[in-house]
Amino acid sequence: MTQAGDVPSLGAYQRLTARFARIATLDEAAGMLGWDAAAMMPAGGAAARGDQLAVLAGMSHRMLTAPEVAGDLAEAEAGRPALDAWQGANLALMRHAHTRAAAVPDTLVEAMALASSRCEQVWREARRTADFKLVAPLLREVLERVRAQAAALAPALGLAPYDALMDGYQPGIGSADMAPLFAAYERFLRDALPKVEARQAAGPQPVPPQGPFPADVQARVCRQLAARVGLEADHVRIDSSQHPFCGGTPTDVRITTRYDEQDFSKALLSVLHESGHGLYERDLPEAWARQPVGAAAGMGVHESQSLIVEMQACRTDAFLSWLGGELRPLFGGPDAAYRGENLGRLWRHVARSFIRIDADEMTYPAHVILRFRLEQALIAGDLAVEDLPAAWNEGMRELLGITPPDDARGCLQDIHWYSGEFGYFPSYSLGAMAAAQLMAAARRAVTGLEEALGQGDLGPLRAWLREKVHRQASRYGFQELLRQATGKPLDVQDFLDHLTTRYLV
Amino acid sequence: MTQAGDVPSLGAYQRLTARFARIATLDEAAGMLGWDAAAMMPAGGAAARGDQLAVLAGMSHRMLTAPEVAGDLAEAEAGRPALDAWQGANLALMRHAHTRAAAVPDTLVEAMALASSRCEQVWREARRTADFKLVAPLLREVLERVRAQAAALAPALGLAPYDALMDGYQPGIGSADMAPLFAAYERFLRDALPKVEARQAAGPQPVPPQGPFPADVQARVCRQLAARVGLEADHVRIDSSQHPFCGGTPTDVRITTRYDEQDFSKALLSVLHESGHGLYERDLPEAWARQPVGAAAGMGVHESQSLIVEMQACRTDAFLSWLGGELRPLFGGPDAAYRGENLGRLWRHVARSFIRIDADEMTYPAHVILRFRLEQALIAGDLAVEDLPAAWNEGMRELLGITPPDDARGCLQDIHWYSGEFGYFPSYSLGAMAAAQLMAAARRAVTGLEEALGQGDLGPLRAWLREKVHRQASRYGFQELLRQATGKPLDVQDFLDHLTTRYLV
Repeated sequence: MTQAGDVPSLGAYQRLTARFARIATLDEAAGMLGWDAAAMMPAGGAAARGDQLAVLAGMSHRMLTAPEVAGDLAEAEAGRPALDAWQGANLALMRHAHTRAAAVPDTLVEAMALASSRCEQVWREARRTADFKLVAPLLREVLERVRAQAAALAPALGLAPYDALMDGYQPGIGSADMAPLFAAYERFLRDALPKVEARQAAGPQPVPPQGPFPADVQARVCRQLAARVGLEADHVRIDSSQHPFCGGTPTDVRITTRYDEQDFSKALLSVLHESGHGLYERDLPEAWARQPVGAAAGMGVHESQSLIVEMQACRTDAFLSWLGGELRPLFGGPDAAYRGENLGRLWRHVARSFIRIDADEMTYPAHVILRFRLEQALIAGDLAVEDLPAAWNEGMRELLGITPPDDARGCLQDIHWYSGEFGYFPSYSLGAMAAAQLMAAARRAVTGLEEALGQGDLGPLRAWLREKVHRQASRYGFQELLRQATGKPLDVQDFLDHLTTRYLV
Repeated sequence: MTQAGDVPSLGAYQRLTARFARIATLDEAAGMLGWDAAAMMPAGGAAARGDQLAVLAGMSHRMLTAPEVAGDLAEAEAGRPALDAWQGANLALMRHAHTRAAAVPDTLVEAMALASSRCEQVWREARRTADFKLVAPLLREVLERVRAQAAALAPALGLAPYDALMDGYQPGIGSADMAPLFAAYERFLRDALPKVEARQAAGPQPVPPQGPFPADVQARVCRQLAARVGLEADHVRIDSSQHPFCGGTPTDVRITTRYDEQDFSKALLSVLHESGHGLYERDLPEAWARQPVGAAAGMGVHESQSLIVEMQACRTDAFLSWLGGELRPLFGGPDAAYRGENLGRLWRHVARSFIRIDADEMTYPAHVILRFRLEQALIAGDLAVEDLPAAWNEGMRELLGITPPDDARGCLQDIHWYSGEFGYFPSYSLGAMAAAQLMAAARRAVTGLEEALGQGDLGPLRAWLREKVHRQASRYGFQELLRQATGKPLDVQDFLDHLTTRYLV
C-alpha cells in the first residue's frame, strides 16, 4: 500500500487508492465467505450466507459508484503526467472498473443477482433429472437480464455486447481475437484427433493403480504437492468441496479438492491445477496489494497459471516419473502402475467425451468452442433458449462427432449460464493457449527446467513465471503481458505444437 | 424480518429496521471471519484478516452513527404509541446501541483497536514467559483508552464509568447489583469450601478412564452430544481451536473444542457448554432475526444457557450415568471408570486452583470476584498497572488462600484486559447464578425433567428454556427476563442451594 499512495501532491489519486483498497478488502471478506459456503458451511446456513454476500456486494458496488469517485477520477487523470507507469496503469484500471460498475443500474444488478440465484437452484434439480424444460423459463429470465447488462456495458466500453461481457472475465480479448485461434485449432483437431486415437488404440494400454487409496494419505500427498508447486504451509489450506477450486487471498490461499478412495487422480491433479492458481495469487506484488493494478490480469491469465503447472509441467514424462516413484511406497501395488509412462498413458489419454471438466487437453477447446458459439448466438438473440438443447447436440456432432445421450451430459452440465456467466468460457482456452506459449518461452529461457521437473522441482519454472507473469500483475493487458514474457502476442501455434509433440511424435 | 417492519405508517421505524438488519448482516460476516481466524486460517493470513475485520467493523460503526440515524430515532420515538411491545423494545434497543456508538469518538475507537491489538500480541509472549513487565506499558496504554471510553459513555448512559463498561456486555446489571450477590457467595464459600474438601478427601477417589481416546471417536461423540442438546446437523459444525468457543449465526452455529487423546473430558464438556450457547442462538425468534430485540439478551444470559446445559443438566448423576453407558463401549476399559458416580467425582471435583477457566463451579466465582474488584480499581484509577501482580496475588490469598507461583498463573492468564475488555468478567458469575435459578424453576415446572436427563434427553429442559428464555430474546432486560421465567429477579440463593445440594448433602 505504501508504494500505491506515494504521490503526496496527488490528493485525488490517493483518495482513490484508499477507496479501492477498502473495496478490495471487502471483496476479500466476501471471497472468504464464498469459500466457506463451498467448503465448510452446513446446508442450513445458506440463506443467511446469501444475505451476507448480497450486503457485501452491494456495499462494494456502492463504494465503487459513489458520487465522489467520478470527480476524483477526472482530477487524478488531469494529474496523470506525475504518475509513474504502475500508478498510471492503476488509475486506468480504476477508470475501467468504475465505467463497468456505473454503466449498469443498481436495479439491474439486483434483478440479475435474484434471477441467477433462483435459476441456479432450479438448475441443480434440472441437471440431476436431465430435464432442461424445468429450468428453461428461468434461464430465459437470466438471459434477458444478461442481454440488458451487455447492452448497457457495450456503449460505455466501446465494445460489442458479447465482447463487453468477455471483458468482465478477461479484459483486452474479444470474440474477434478468439475466432482465428479457434479456427486454426479446429483444422488441427480434425486432422490430429483420429491419428491420436489410432496411436492410442495400437499402443500399450494404461494400467490403473489398484486402490483403495486412503483419503488421509491422499490429503498428505496433496499438501506435499502444493508445497512442491511453491505454496508455503503457513499460507494455504486444502479442504474438500463438491468441485475443486482456489479461493482466498494472496496470503491465505484456500484450495479445495475431492478425494475418491478408488482413484487418486482427481485429487492430485486438481490440487496441482489449483496450486497454480494459488501460486499466482501468492506471488502478486505486495506493494500493490488491494489495488487494481496489483490484481491478477484476468481469468484467462489465471487459467494459464493453473494449466502451466498441471498440464504443461506436471504431466510431462519427467515429472510423472518422479511422482510415480513418490506414490508407489505410499499406496503400494505393482511397480508398473506407478511408472511415469503408465501414469502418462492414464493422465494424457485423449477421448471424445461429453463433459467439459473431464475432457483431455486436446479435445477441451472443442467444448469451449461449442459454448462460445452458442453463447454469442444467445446474446445476439439469434438462438432461443428453447432451441439450446438441439443446437448443443448438433454442435457436439459437428465438433467431436458424438451426440449427448441426455441434456445432463449436454447443455445442462455447466453452471455458468444458469448463474449468469456469459463470456467466461473463452478464458479456459485462452489459458490453455497462453500456458503452452509461456512454457515454450520458459523452456528456451531457463536451463535445467526439464531436469528439475524430473526431480519434482518446480522451482526454476516458478522463478521464471514469478518474474514474467506473477510480479507483473495487471500492469499490462493480456497481449502485452504475453509479448513481454514470450516475445509475441497470443499465438495458437505453441499450443498446437505442444499437442503435436505430446500426442503425435 | 417481515414482522419487524410491519408498521406501514412508520417510515422512520422501518428505515431503522432496514438499517439495523444490514448492520447485523455485516456483523454476521465479521463473526464468521472471526471463527475462521480461530478455527481454519493459516497463520500467514492474520494480517489480511485483521484488515478485513477492521473494515467491516468500521462500516458497521459508521452505519450505526450515520447522521440520519438520530433523526430517524427521534421520529420513530415520536410515533412510539403505534408500536407493539416487541417493536417498542426494539426501538429502545436501537436508541441504546446508537447512544453507545455515538458517545465514543471514531478516533478513540480506532486508538482503542490499535492499542489492544498491539497489547494482545505482546501479551501472548508475556504469558508464555510469565513476564508481566513486558506487557505492562502496553496494558497501561489500553487502560488509558478504556478509561477514556468509560468516561465518554458514562454521561451518555447515565451510569458510573465502570457500569457503563459492564453495560456493554450485560445491559441492565451494574456493580451495585453484583456486590451483594458476591458478598453472600463469599460468606458461603468461606464456610463450605473446607467442608467440601474434607468430604472429598474422605470419600472414594475418582478413577480416570484409561486412554488413548482417538480424536475421531471423540469428535463423533461430540457431534452426538450437540445433537442431544438440540443442535441439528444441518445447522452446526464442530471444529478445533486453541480455546473452545461458539460462533456463527442462528442458522449456522460454529462450535470449536480441543481433542486430547489422553483425556476426553475437555472435548466433551466444552462441546456441551458451547452447545448451550449454540442452542440459544438457534432458538432466537426468526421473525426478529437481525433486529436488536431479536438478539441474545447479553453475555450473562448467554453464559446462563451454556452453564445450564453443561453444569446444571449434564453434570447431574442422572445424565452422567447415561453418558458413561454410552462412552464405555466406544472407548473400552473397566466399567467402573464409566459409572455415573465416578464421572461425577471426576467432573465435580472441587479444588482451590490458579486458573479460572479450569476452575470448578464452586470456586469459579471467587476467580471472578478477584477480577471484578481489580478492574473496578483500575478503571477508577485506584490501582496502577505496575501494582497489578501484587494486588492479584494478595486477592488470591484472601479469596482462596493460595498464592500464584508466577504471573502466568496470576494476572497474565486471561486475555480480556489485554484486549481491552473491562467489565466482562461479572457475566460469567451472572450466568452461573442465573443458570441455577432457571434450573430450579425448570425442575418445579417440568415434570419428568430428571428422568429425561437419565435417558440423555435434554428435550424437556430445552422446550422450557426455549419458551422462557430463547424465544424472549432481548424483549426484556436481564432482571425482568428472570422474573418472567422464575418469578423473581436474580437471587444468589438458588446458586448456593445448588452448590449445597450437589457438594454438601
